[in-house]
Amino acid sequence: MEHIRTIQVGEHVGQRVKLAGWLHQVRALGKINFILVRDGYGIAQAMTLDPHALAPLNGLASESVVEIAGMVVAEPQAPGGVELRDIALEVISPVTDALPFPINKRVLHASLDTLLDHATVALRHPARRALFRLSAGIMAAFREFLNDAGFTEIQSPKLVASATESGANVFAVEYFGKKAYLAQSPQFYKQIMVGVFERVYEIGPVFRAEPHDTTRHVNEYVSMDAEFGFIADHFSVTTLLTALVRHILTRVSERCAADLKLLDVHLPTLPAAIPHIHFRDAQQLILERHGEDCRGEPDLAPQHERWLGEWARAAQGSDFLFVTGYPMAKRPFYTHPDPADPTYSNSFDLLLRGTELVTGGQRLHRYADYAAALARARLPLEPFAYYLEAMKHGMPPHGGFAIGLERFVMQLCGLANLREATLFPRDQHRLTP
Amino acid sequence: MEHIRTIQVGEHVGQRVKLAGWLHQVRALGKINFILVRDGYGIAQAMTLDPHALAPLNGLASESVVEIAGMVVAEPQAPGGVELRDIALEVISPVTDALPFPINKRVLHASLDTLLDHATVALRHPARRALFRLSAGIMAAFREFLNDAGFTEIQSPKLVASATESGANVFAVEYFGKKAYLAQSPQFYKQIMVGVFERVYEIGPVFRAEPHDTTRHVNEYVSMDAEFGFIADHFSVTTLLTALVRHILTRVSERCAADLKLLDVHLPTLPAAIPHIHFRDAQQLILERHGEDCRGEPDLAPQHERWLGEWARAAQGSDFLFVTGYPMAKRPFYTHPDPADPTYSNSFDLLLRGTELVTGGQRLHRYADYAAALARARLPLEPFAYYLEAMKHGMPPHGGFAIGLERFVMQLCGLANLREATLFPRDQHRLTP
Repeated sequence: MEHIRTIQVGEHVGQRVKLAGWLHQVRALGKINFILVRDGYGIAQAMTLDPHALAPLNGLASESVVEIAGMVVAEPQAPGGVELRDIALEVISPVTDALPFPINKRVLHASLDTLLDHATVALRHPARRALFRLSAGIMAAFREFLNDAGFTEIQSPKLVASATESGANVFAVEYFGKKAYLAQSPQFYKQIMVGVFERVYEIGPVFRAEPHDTTRHVNEYVSMDAEFGFIADHFSVTTLLTALVRHILTRVSERCAADLKLLDVHLPTLPAAIPHIHFRDAQQLILERHGEDCRGEPDLAPQHERWLGEWARAAQGSDFLFVTGYPMAKRPFYTHPDPADPTYSNSFDLLLRGTELVTGGQRLHRYADYAAALARARLPLEPFAYYLEAMKHGMPPHGGFAIGLERFVMQLCGLANLREATLFPRDQHRLTP
Repeated sequence: MEHIRTIQVGEHVGQRVKLAGWLHQVRALGKINFILVRDGYGIAQAMTLDPHALAPLNGLASESVVEIAGMVVAEPQAPGGVELRDIALEVISPVTDALPFPINKRVLHASLDTLLDHATVALRHPARRALFRLSAGIMAAFREFLNDAGFTEIQSPKLVASATESGANVFAVEYFGKKAYLAQSPQFYKQIMVGVFERVYEIGPVFRAEPHDTTRHVNEYVSMDAEFGFIADHFSVTTLLTALVRHILTRVSERCAADLKLLDVHLPTLPAAIPHIHFRDAQQLILERHGEDCRGEPDLAPQHERWLGEWARAAQGSDFLFVTGYPMAKRPFYTHPDPADPTYSNSFDLLLRGTELVTGGQRLHRYADYAAALARARLPLEPFAYYLEAMKHGMPPHGGFAIGLERFVMQLCGLANLREATLFPRDQHRLTP
């Protein structure tokens, strides 16, 4: 007999099938008994009027791994409209320990810390699991779009000889009697590889030794990076990014529909073009609408971003907003200045519902500009020699962006803490599981 | 005028087009002058009888970034059968420094060390670049096959609290006043996630602090990992792996045809079923055919693997060979023993042309078996507590494998050193570029 997945049961009405999975729930009511079996894809119901049929489960706890055979019968009241009857149960891996918290209720009733401590089992809860199926869907859609747009995937090293952008907030590694560091981003490598492939992307871990202890930061996360050459300026990047975000939202709405429904997620509104506002105008708008004068400050505070997000929603009908032209003072040395006013940069942030989702922009591409920028930043040339070699030997105008995967899931799903969107989060207090 | 890619030129005969790329080569012969422009995809030729047309390139070195417009004309002697004529050149990024070695010859004439020191430009050489387009093709085909087979992609943490498999060969990280380690593999996490998704995969960096200094080892590489539940034994794993390898070879032969041709790669022969030989029989075969008695030894030496590879080729017509049933003594504690003879294991290596390409097998899945295995290995339970929690709460029989991406490319392409297949290799002596 064929072993099928729970989500395939509906295709087998009138046939005897075999399922394998975890004992999600048993409701033994005496006269009528229900068993819910969860596999890696969904949950199926079995029903029996014969209490003896449950005998193999005597003394076993939920999450026991079982095989269950039965006849598929249409049953409008069952989840998915079908259930197994005339069942035969076999226990594959008996479980006797009780879970630290039940995972067969609609909502997980435990503190976030408890859930994270026991992530190995908490992740089995359908709603937790749906978040990471959504993560996988976002990664797949990201790659699909960029592959079609002529990008080549790279895997750059995570062990590096010096900090990517500055000496701060970098983890040090004992490396054969020397010091190495964990890459804070693939920035330099993706730029170098523009010289090879013209268009590149990478999805991989990045490491930030930031001592922050907030709901929006962890110390290791997954960065979805892209970089490409022969751009006009940062608006070439926002154009490509807009099409990419549209593709991701379309694909997850198609392929993760059940997960989005389970999570009660309403995908954000993305107009034909995402509105954009210059940093200077954003500060002016904040002054006019909220009476707060932040002009002259080199960055936006989280509250400013929230106000801008509200404005984009109300005035532009968009959950997304590009803020462009951030001051050079707050952007890394490789950022391309605005040729018309070099105190501002050809950079942008993409806000989703008033929170930063993506950072990107145009980079410098001439060796002489790098040498000058590093001198201005009082940084030595030597640690950057390998990177500058690419610039010395011909780089086109180029730019790119980085999307935090967990941040994307958090904002799509309206989660309160980035850790909920992180498989096994790492922070100052947490290095396991 | 449309900016097109070099590989699209052939589709535009009789039209005026614009290309952008790197000045790969200029052959100014006076009466007739050729310019080769390389972009991220290929190389196109432009020809002019007018030496003045080259004026913008005066004093410029190769790798200058240029835009070139011209009329596309069929020319059987040109690469790709077409060339641009009546050209107009514009310099985007002038280069005046000479390259450390020419990258416009068929073969790169420089030592491996020199090539790696200057990888940022060496990778622009068409044959170097082709290797990494092949890498990207392998990753894409790996994901494509596993997505279709119901696997979910995960991204597991690289910062971990303890060594994955043993305390040796692990890099230590300074982590907020404590010690963390870099994950040697996603082994524990992929197993845990079998409890969630049933079938999972991950492509990501792994870190091995091995002091080896060989042509076959680097200290950071890309591991393509898969793990899945509800298997019968390790032969369920070899069956899936065989189909995966077939899919990868098919896809790269279709999608990387030009790269394979440039690299003069002949894809290995993969019969309908890959032959397999038990470890014990492999040792017997080595004794009979080569007179070397290695019976009783717990592992195969590289020469033994080469001999087995030759045998598989000659006697079985296969470049691939599964060696199964390695002794438990040399396999990690989570390996499932052979129920019929527990000194051997339900594990395997897949050899390609006589070199190990993949390691895999069935894992233990019962908590009690783990507790016993850790006791036998004289390892404490406590560092593994989070991992064992998954086993305590129901795990199906499961197994999986790991493929080293760079190793795969090295063996497909017959490279002499793993570093040639590694974008920016890391070893005891090399941490840059």
